[in-house]
Amino acid sequence: MTAAPQRIYTFGAGRAEGHAAMKDVLGGKGAGLAEMTNLGIPVPPGFTVSTAACAEYYRTGRKLPAGLMDEVRGALAAVESIAGARFGDPENPLLLSVRSGAKFSMPGMMDTVLNLGLNTDTVGGLARSTGDPRFAWDSFRRFVQMYGDVVLGVNRHPLEKLIEGRKEARGVTQDTELTADDWRDLVSAFLERVESQLRRPFPMDPYEQLEGAIAAVFRSWNTPRAVFYRKEHGIPDDIYTAVNVQAMVFGNLGDDSATGVAFTRDPATGEDLFYGEFLPNAQGEDVVAGIRTPLPINRSRPVPDGVATLEELMPAAYGTLLEVRRRLEGHFRDMQDLEFTIQRGRVWMLQCRTGKRTARAAVRIAVDMVGEGLIDRDTALLRVQPSQLDQLLHPTIDPKAPRHVIARGLPASPGARTGKVVFTPEEAVARSERGDAVILVRRETSPEDIAGMSAAQGILTARGGQTSHAAVVARGMGKCCVVGCSEISVALDEKSFTTSRGRTVREGDEITLDGATGEVMLGRVGVQGVDPEHDRELGQVLHWADEVRRLRIRTNADTPDDARTARRFGAEGIGLCRTEHMFFDEERVALVREMILAETFEERKAALDRILPFQRRDFEGIFRAMAGLPVTVRLLDPPLHEFLPTTDAQVKALAEHSGMREADIRRKTREHEEANPMLGHRGCRLGISHPEIYRMQVRAILEAACAVASEEIAVLPEIMIPLVSIEKELEFLKEEVADEAEAVFRGTGRRVAYQVGTMIELPRACLVAGGIARTAEFFSFGTNDLTQTSYGFARDDAGPFLRVYEEVKIIGRSPFVTLDREGVGELVRIAVERGRAARPGLKTGICGEHGGDPDSIAFCHEVGLDYVSCSPFRVPVARLAAAHAALREAAK
Amino acid sequence: MTAAPQRIYTFGAGRAEGHAAMKDVLGGKGAGLAEMTNLGIPVPPGFTVSTAACAEYYRTGRKLPAGLMDEVRGALAAVESIAGARFGDPENPLLLSVRSGAKFSMPGMMDTVLNLGLNTDTVGGLARSTGDPRFAWDSFRRFVQMYGDVVLGVNRHPLEKLIEGRKEARGVTQDTELTADDWRDLVSAFLERVESQLRRPFPMDPYEQLEGAIAAVFRSWNTPRAVFYRKEHGIPDDIYTAVNVQAMVFGNLGDDSATGVAFTRDPATGEDLFYGEFLPNAQGEDVVAGIRTPLPINRSRPVPDGVATLEELMPAAYGTLLEVRRRLEGHFRDMQDLEFTIQRGRVWMLQCRTGKRTARAAVRIAVDMVGEGLIDRDTALLRVQPSQLDQLLHPTIDPKAPRHVIARGLPASPGARTGKVVFTPEEAVARSERGDAVILVRRETSPEDIAGMSAAQGILTARGGQTSHAAVVARGMGKCCVVGCSEISVALDEKSFTTSRGRTVREGDEITLDGATGEVMLGRVGVQGVDPEHDRELGQVLHWADEVRRLRIRTNADTPDDARTARRFGAEGIGLCRTEHMFFDEERVALVREMILAETFEERKAALDRILPFQRRDFEGIFRAMAGLPVTVRLLDPPLHEFLPTTDAQVKALAEHSGMREADIRRKTREHEEANPMLGHRGCRLGISHPEIYRMQVRAILEAACAVASEEIAVLPEIMIPLVSIEKELEFLKEEVADEAEAVFRGTGRRVAYQVGTMIELPRACLVAGGIARTAEFFSFGTNDLTQTSYGFARDDAGPFLRVYEEVKIIGRSPFVTLDREGVGELVRIAVERGRAARPGLKTGICGEHGGDPDSIAFCHEVGLDYVSCSPFRVPVARLAAAHAALREAAK
Repeated sequence: MTAAPQRIYTFGAGRAEGHAAMKDVLGGKGAGLAEMTNLGIPVPPGFTVSTAACAEYYRTGRKLPAGLMDEVRGALAAVESIAGARFGDPENPLLLSVRSGAKFSMPGMMDTVLNLGLNTDTVGGLARSTGDPRFAWDSFRRFVQMYGDVVLGVNRHPLEKLIEGRKEARGVTQDTELTADDWRDLVSAFLERVESQLRRPFPMDPYEQLEGAIAAVFRSWNTPRAVFYRKEHGIPDDIYTAVNVQAMVFGNLGDDSATGVAFTRDPATGEDLFYGEFLPNAQGEDVVAGIRTPLPINRSRPVPDGVATLEELMPAAYGTLLEVRRRLEGHFRDMQDLEFTIQRGRVWMLQCRTGKRTARAAVRIAVDMVGEGLIDRDTALLRVQPSQLDQLLHPTIDPKAPRHVIARGLPASPGARTGKVVFTPEEAVARSERGDAVILVRRETSPEDIAGMSAAQGILTARGGQTSHAAVVARGMGKCCVVGCSEISVALDEKSFTTSRGRTVREGDEITLDGATGEVMLGRVGVQGVDPEHDRELGQVLHWADEVRRLRIRTNADTPDDARTARRFGAEGIGLCRTEHMFFDEERVALVREMILAETFEERKAALDRILPFQRRDFEGIFRAMAGLPVTVRLLDPPLHEFLPTTDAQVKALAEHSGMREADIRRKTREHEEANPMLGHRGCRLGISHPEIYRMQVRAILEAACAVASEEIAVLPEIMIPLVSIEKELEFLKEEVADEAEAVFRGTGRRVAYQVGTMIELPRACLVAGGIARTAEFFSFGTNDLTQTSYGFARDDAGPFLRVYEEVKIIGRSPFVTLDREGVGELVRIAVERGRAARPGLKTGICGEHGGDPDSIAFCHEVGLDYVSCSPFRVPVARLAAAHAALREAAK
Repeated sequence: MTAAPQRIYTFGAGRAEGHAAMKDVLGGKGAGLAEMTNLGIPVPPGFTVSTAACAEYYRTGRKLPAGLMDEVRGALAAVESIAGARFGDPENPLLLSVRSGAKFSMPGMMDTVLNLGLNTDTVGGLARSTGDPRFAWDSFRRFVQMYGDVVLGVNRHPLEKLIEGRKEARGVTQDTELTADDWRDLVSAFLERVESQLRRPFPMDPYEQLEGAIAAVFRSWNTPRAVFYRKEHGIPDDIYTAVNVQAMVFGNLGDDSATGVAFTRDPATGEDLFYGEFLPNAQGEDVVAGIRTPLPINRSRPVPDGVATLEELMPAAYGTLLEVRRRLEGHFRDMQDLEFTIQRGRVWMLQCRTGKRTARAAVRIAVDMVGEGLIDRDTALLRVQPSQLDQLLHPTIDPKAPRHVIARGLPASPGARTGKVVFTPEEAVARSERGDAVILVRRETSPEDIAGMSAAQGILTARGGQTSHAAVVARGMGKCCVVGCSEISVALDEKSFTTSRGRTVREGDEITLDGATGEVMLGRVGVQGVDPEHDRELGQVLHWADEVRRLRIRTNADTPDDARTARRFGAEGIGLCRTEHMFFDEERVALVREMILAETFEERKAALDRILPFQRRDFEGIFRAMAGLPVTVRLLDPPLHEFLPTTDAQVKALAEHSGMREADIRRKTREHEEANPMLGHRGCRLGISHPEIYRMQVRAILEAACAVASEEIAVLPEIMIPLVSIEKELEFLKEEVADEAEAVFRGTGRRVAYQVGTMIELPRACLVAGGIARTAEFFSFGTNDLTQTSYGFARDDAGPFLRVYEEVKIIGRSPFVTLDREGVGELVRIAVERGRAARPGLKTGICGEHGGDPDSIAFCHEVGLDYVSCSPFRVPVARLAAAHAALREAAK
């Protein structure tokens, strides 16, 4: 057995046992505190109980490690000596804060217990040492409330009610109007209430309090909220949390005290300005909880009339913060998120970590820092997460669109979204599962709301600042979010909110949020996409990405419009042009239905001949939009019955249009029904049983190609056969294609070069890829169907059990979101190897939703594909993800 | 370029250019003729045009190879000199027979053209040389009919009508009553009719006739019937046919002439007796066509009163045949099928080939020949095809069952079958595709009927003998068949037949055939299986198979009855005991439905508690039946909605039984519906979302095991988790199983050893088999689902396109019948390798229908599985197939 790992790391008075690189052991907060201490930045002394101790706690059946509290006492002695006060000393008590802190910041865990060490003895000492009995009793009641809530599990609300009662009895409305005696009486009432709930007294022994708080932090690692958050963010369960125990500093010791948070650059825009908020005479929790609206630390952003800034109110303290900002950014070479407390004019830093930022800010900061010489190009690229770009590229309000603004709040997380109003996280989840876009409206959010926030398109809160829970979480999720919208009042019981201008909005009404301006608008408002061409920093990042990546990026586009959008976003061709959507167009679907229900080959052929001109026009538009770039067109894939009429009205309309009898239409429609249509008569199976359909499509593609080529536009058509599982399927259809192509070329008097390839989307196709590659000129992996058939899950039917699988941790991320490397990926690898062995230089790509997922793109790079294809808005994401993959490979 | 292959091989007068081993070149018939010639057996002289010539014919776009007819003329000169007659000589014309002959005997190809060389000149020579003008003109008209039909494609029926007209005009009923002049007149009429149909005269030039006949044989290789037959029998398309051209001998030159067929042993029973039939004064086609009922060659079998045998009528010729029989069996060491013609007392052999035989006969002959020292054990094993045993093991009429015999025919192919009567092959195919068992009733069958015969359970013909088309084909297919049932008269127009006792049976009525006795019975008659234990020869073959095979053979059995049957057939355990059938039992399904629709865990648990005793009883019976042998029980697999009520009556009944509201039942049933249930919430996914169901099953299995073990019966339960695709699914469920098992063992105070393993039936499971094998103690390949997901075909939905695939030759044999080695087999191979690497000695088997298919069993042997599991009646088949696999491996 190896020596037990170190469980306690002290810091204080300019020296720390830990440092910034020890996040695994100390958690993010602990590592930041150690690093700042070593840098000589003022940090209240304390120590960190390591994640190893938490791991031991769980390993031994949720028991604090033996001997841990002895080590804690030892570390505490050092803190006492630096702070000049003793823990539990009735005369001059040392008070502690206890905070959780995992490697990754994690809402949902126990956050903080403040003022620990207070009891009926030490409260007097605190009153004396601060000279402020009211402060001391107020601190004590805060401690009882907090400790009761997060450590003992006592409901907060009865205690809040006691305070309300006391204020009513005293005829006052503000907490600040209560006196020391009021607070003392309330503490007594609180203690009684806690004792009656717990059937044992509130712990008065400071060490018992501390032991309880440490255990509570460990426990909080596995609350459902924390587990949910980790699952959402792909954080492993076995990294555990550390516990940070520090000497208390007080931001609520009068008007020369304050507490606040700051970012070394603007986390929303990335601008190089010092950005932050503070609350005078307050404890830190007041800022985060969003109960009082904080003040700006400076005038780097417009400030409402009559509002003073920290810079104005406490210029010396602000100067210290500015200096801290300079040193930390220089040291970490990245934007930092800071927490500070000013106690009677003296600045103490309570946290420093790499700041979360919007995509906008990430891009700006990365580009700026290269300009400032702080980082190099590759580092800058890695500073922007591909998944963040999605947020950045999400639509914004079209400035020219008419809008009806009913309220305005703080712009907390950008993006513009329309949705139906809901007022509870449960309703948000329920409606979004039904396919509704929803906007979650709350007074303020709390960690219980996470699932609802995740389900919503956007979030609107009445209270809280830019660093409130709602704002932080929404930015992390890349959700559009407006906070602190004090112009609305939420009536939860009536499921409505009313604006200060008197407009009432009810559950289910549609509103639009603009997270970039804070505007709340009634109804649906026109939006537009970001244009990376016209965004200098984003353009720079993507340009760097293009320098670095090896993978080509194509797009999935079914229309000329999509094709143009994608091309603007940098698409280098179309990897998947689905033709079924072209069949659903209103004026065509009647023809398609006639074609399917035709009794004879001649009838079917006649219907197809009338569809041909429509398809040809579609392809002409697409080829023009993609001039000079390859366009992969997938021939018809879905089962024919998907096109057939389902309602009585549709049957009637078709009967009128076609002259068929309704009964015949119904009978034939029934004949097309299948028990498992996903595994039925579709894809190339249709092409083989009804060659005339594919021939019509081939004719449309190649006639369009010839027509566009005659305009001196380069066309590179690639004809893709879906759902091949047998070599001979492709051989058969390639001959059909060649035959029709020759007929087209004879007819038009012009030849265009084209390729014939296949979707690889069935397990058998991967295994016999060598044989298929003898015929196929390219492979495009359809990893959606490949995932479905490899796992034997139909995506549409898997919901009920996949939810259970996530709960019991059988799967982490859905394999429909991120490609399963072990199984599905192995098939892809086998297919690439065998395909290339049979046809050296075989072109390979991936189409379908994995093509826009950064982790899946990394896999595609590793396995040596030539390109990925994704939806137009994901193209910039894919460009950056491909660059990341190349950089990570180079770093190996 | 290599030298052109030899295209003509001559034989005659004791010397032949070919020999028996040259079937590839000469076809079966040509090789037999050459070998017999070399053995000094009397064979009419002739030559064989090789299969290479036929291949050339197709390669060059259906043209006879250049120079071939010159070579034919050369070979013909040798025949002329042996025969002492000249082809086309008006005085003493040589007449020829032209017969097709591929490597494998193939109904559906052009069979024979006789009397070739006759024309208006040579007919006179034939009259003179035979001294029989009537014979000569009759031969000429036969030739015109045959040649017109098979070479020129002229409809036979108008010609038959002319004969009928002439008979009517002459007031006679039999062909034999027509005179030479009648036939001469008819020939004129025929020639006119042919000329008017073809718009050109009937070819009178003998060489033109011969060239046409050779080309017709080549063409007949690709008739739809021939293609169908090859597909059915797995015969490659590119082996082609040879053409045998021989001097004519005549069995219709009077009462001292005859023609017949014989087998050196009884092809139905295998008994060592000379068995055959002949027609006096007839040409060979008359026997095969089954138009006249032939006579027996001897009294080795009971002969009806008043019937004379060949032995009695022509003792010298019979003696020659006996000698031929002795020499050929000694030479070929296998039972031979002979065709002979006796021309004016002299015996000529026209064919000799390995005789087709029933399974019964194959077994008997193989065992007898080992006893006679003709062959060794391994040869004997390889002489019996595993697929034949299926036939042998097919049910026979229970001798104690009541039966209502309405007619009696000749027992042509054994087995007892019940089905609905149909009168056309089309109807047979249509009804059998709808799932009906059908009996095809025909006056006589012809090659056009093959598809219908294949679709039928049994075949009944009114005419024809044991060697008629129906009998030969049915034996080849292992179908129950009764022929020559002259007691019935078929009214095709009215879709009915009437027995001589006046009973009318209509299309759709159910009858039972006993192919072993020739009985035709009304309605369904009780049947029973063959018992290999009590069949000496079969027991011997299976005993030899057990000595040779490496694979273990288990069975799929869901009931104690099935288990006992399988054990009698040699099963060495149960490889798949499905539990869903236990749930469908009438008295249980209501409980199952309540369980599924339960609102709460408690309600569900209560319903499960009531199902438990039923399941336990099932398992007790199965464990007793399989005492000492392993029993693999698969936990519940199908989606729950399969159990839910579908009809209004079922909903009503459930509402009454359970007290639930009908509307709730309907709503919940709808909630369980899935778009693709095969890929839905089933298998282990159910076990994970509803652990209480699997726990109930585990409890039932292990409580039963403990109970049976307490009777001193060895139980070896293996619990199998279906549909695993993720390692953690199995980990999760193995823990559940272990937990429940411990509870059972605590409860019963007894422990039994058990294993937990998994079905490997999804592609991903094969790829991550290493991980799964860390938890699984055995793998059982569910190749049915694995085939469905690998190909992305649902078996139930694939019918329409698989039919097209067979037509356009994209697939040969359905992958649901014979395991696809290339794709699905590759996954099995990967899984076995990875599984064994992770867990050395991992037990592996296959369950599902491939487990009873000989080719698939060979694959299982090659890939190193431990066992195959198949239905009880297939167990002997599997034992023999496993032995064949081992022998073939040893021969490599």
